[in-house]
Amino acid sequence: MARIVMKFGGTSVADLDRIRNVAARVKREVDAGNEVAVVVSAMAGVTNTLVKYCQDLSPLHDAREYDAVVATGEQVTSGLTAIALQSIGVDARSWQGWQIPLSTDGAHGKARIEGIAGDELIRRMQGGQVPVVAGFQGVGPDNRVTTLGRGGSDTSAVALAAALKADRCDIYTDVDGVYTTDPRIVARARKLAKIAYEEMLELASVGAKVLQTRSVELAMKERVRVQVLSSFEGGNLLGSDLPGTLVVDEDEIVEKELVAGIAYSRDEAKVTVRRVPDRPGIAAAIFGPLSAAAINVDMIVQNVSADGTTDLTFTVGKTDLPRAEQTLAQHKSEIGYEMLLTEKEVAKISVVGVGMRSHAGVASTMFRTLADRGINIEVISTSEIKVSVLVGAEYTELAVRALHTAYGLDAA
Amino acid sequence: MARIVMKFGGTSVADLDRIRNVAARVKREVDAGNEVAVVVSAMAGVTNTLVKYCQDLSPLHDAREYDAVVATGEQVTSGLTAIALQSIGVDARSWQGWQIPLSTDGAHGKARIEGIAGDELIRRMQGGQVPVVAGFQGVGPDNRVTTLGRGGSDTSAVALAAALKADRCDIYTDVDGVYTTDPRIVARARKLAKIAYEEMLELASVGAKVLQTRSVELAMKERVRVQVLSSFEGGNLLGSDLPGTLVVDEDEIVEKELVAGIAYSRDEAKVTVRRVPDRPGIAAAIFGPLSAAAINVDMIVQNVSADGTTDLTFTVGKTDLPRAEQTLAQHKSEIGYEMLLTEKEVAKISVVGVGMRSHAGVASTMFRTLADRGINIEVISTSEIKVSVLVGAEYTELAVRALHTAYGLDAA
Repeated sequence: MARIVMKFGGTSVADLDRIRNVAARVKREVDAGNEVAVVVSAMAGVTNTLVKYCQDLSPLHDAREYDAVVATGEQVTSGLTAIALQSIGVDARSWQGWQIPLSTDGAHGKARIEGIAGDELIRRMQGGQVPVVAGFQGVGPDNRVTTLGRGGSDTSAVALAAALKADRCDIYTDVDGVYTTDPRIVARARKLAKIAYEEMLELASVGAKVLQTRSVELAMKERVRVQVLSSFEGGNLLGSDLPGTLVVDEDEIVEKELVAGIAYSRDEAKVTVRRVPDRPGIAAAIFGPLSAAAINVDMIVQNVSADGTTDLTFTVGKTDLPRAEQTLAQHKSEIGYEMLLTEKEVAKISVVGVGMRSHAGVASTMFRTLADRGINIEVISTSEIKVSVLVGAEYTELAVRALHTAYGLDAA
Repeated sequence: MARIVMKFGGTSVADLDRIRNVAARVKREVDAGNEVAVVVSAMAGVTNTLVKYCQDLSPLHDAREYDAVVATGEQVTSGLTAIALQSIGVDARSWQGWQIPLSTDGAHGKARIEGIAGDELIRRMQGGQVPVVAGFQGVGPDNRVTTLGRGGSDTSAVALAAALKADRCDIYTDVDGVYTTDPRIVARARKLAKIAYEEMLELASVGAKVLQTRSVELAMKERVRVQVLSSFEGGNLLGSDLPGTLVVDEDEIVEKELVAGIAYSRDEAKVTVRRVPDRPGIAAAIFGPLSAAAINVDMIVQNVSADGTTDLTFTVGKTDLPRAEQTLAQHKSEIGYEMLLTEKEVAKISVVGVGMRSHAGVASTMFRTLADRGINIEVISTSEIKVSVLVGAEYTELAVRALHTAYGLDAA
């Protein structure tokens, strides 16, 4: 017997038939003697429709009203899923964020969870009832509905699993696990049985869209065992019990691979600030205004100085590029640069693995592999368990495939 | 300066353009110096879709989950209307039933309002903010969402007007007021400037679908001045300030008409229980089981007894007819009747007016008028301010037109 939180995304509850399938999947866990809580997203497409309503009425709409509107998507599926469960003999009831309560801060539209009152839910689970919790939403300090930002239902599920002291948090999604890389690019990509929190976090933050980054951070902090698995296995909805990928503590992974996976992202753009005076405080002069404008800067490289000036190159999210250019132009006199160059046709390729900590040579293998293919590296950034490079976007597939082979990740 | 509750039904908020028009209409009242609270229904069609989801998943679904699902329709429009108001410079915020709180009993799906905490809303209205309240919904004793039954937003609005001590409750609907009869049947029907609560109540309960019966009962009890007016006047959405019909205390109506209006309903069916023993307790034997099955019986007539048996005729809602037949068949031995006859092709025609209290002859005028047209009266029932007759459904228009003329209601 285990206590399990099962989370179903929008495609898993896209229509009534799929909701019935979700109920059947939940019933299987209940019948196996487990205590189960369910977290559901909105039916696929519903959130987008509601968001569009708000945007069409007013591009600068009140985030508190936006939250009241869009949180209804999850309210609907929580009620419908409870009805579907009851109709097959499973005791169930829906819970909205404010009813639990699932308390958040007041940052409407991207609120952070501050606490979940789990005792009543645990009591009911022990009595055989399945709580069906509306994902993505909570209640703020002023008793108004908040939402956690897109993909926030993953975070709801992990936070709930922590509050309920669950043995596992199963995230049902439209992929059947975490792969060594995107199988659409590398046919021989392998599904990982286990991956460490740190690796998953790096993969999530560099473009693998399996789990929301914040949900992985939270799982790592709270030591929640997360399983990523498919709602649509073997052509049947939730038909099999094939295991997905477990996201766990590094210590649980006995056979550590040097590299767990290769990720790529085409969501960034490169900015080069040409010929800025090479003096102390110049980085602050550039990145201070960007930070004040809430523009996240990712990779940064500063060239060697020549004749008292230098070039600074960095990446920002592609959607932030126009604002970044505008912000830097406004501060041109303080910064004192000669010109701005921008480039959108770039891709960030990342190699991730906790094994790097104890093995040298991962980065040099990457650089050599790319050099052998004639791929120029424009920017490099590294962390303890990750090496990322920026290359021309047209080399994305070539680079990912070459690295997948070079690190021995190809399936037999 | 007045304090006004403005209620907008589903067709008035059916899409974003109409919501913008609602906001403009509200702004006009605010600009005129009034304190305004708004009550909104779900966008037209949304509630039906949500109800269908619940029914498709399980015909016998949990009413608590049904309420959680269908109450979202009003939540969406309350948020969107608040955004639309803000976008034209009107301070506004949405309120869900649980946030106010608007407390109800626990009769999910048809809950009754038990109290509304109005002080905070009044304080905000005095500060210039417009509360936009989600109609139709409240919160039950167990902190779960409740709904008030179809058309319940009218009741929300009237109850809110009472709690806020509003000077007026304006109900915007798809007709521009209360008419002496259905203008689709009688071209010369007249819009009434004022109508008494009692008359409106009788009209609502006999088929005039302008206001939900419970909202009129509540308005009468709480002495809330209700104005029925159109969202779509002069071809323009909310374009004019043409007055609608005021529903007020009888004393406010100076020139009382003998008859305020003629209503009709084709929603009832006639049941005749033939040859039941004419003994004490026979009515209880028939109507007890029907009441236990929650079947409302309306008109009742008992024939003169002959050879120790009698016939009982009554009407029930057409949708209840199959259950009524089944219930009576199950109790045939206790009741001891010979046969059941049912007839669905009937219409109830009602003449309503507080003037009847002081003037005799209203009923006899009705009977003579119908007799002159060769219309047979099958059942008669009367109240202090109403006379209703059951006739063959094919005579509906003829009867309504003849009575409209007979009571001098035709427009000049």
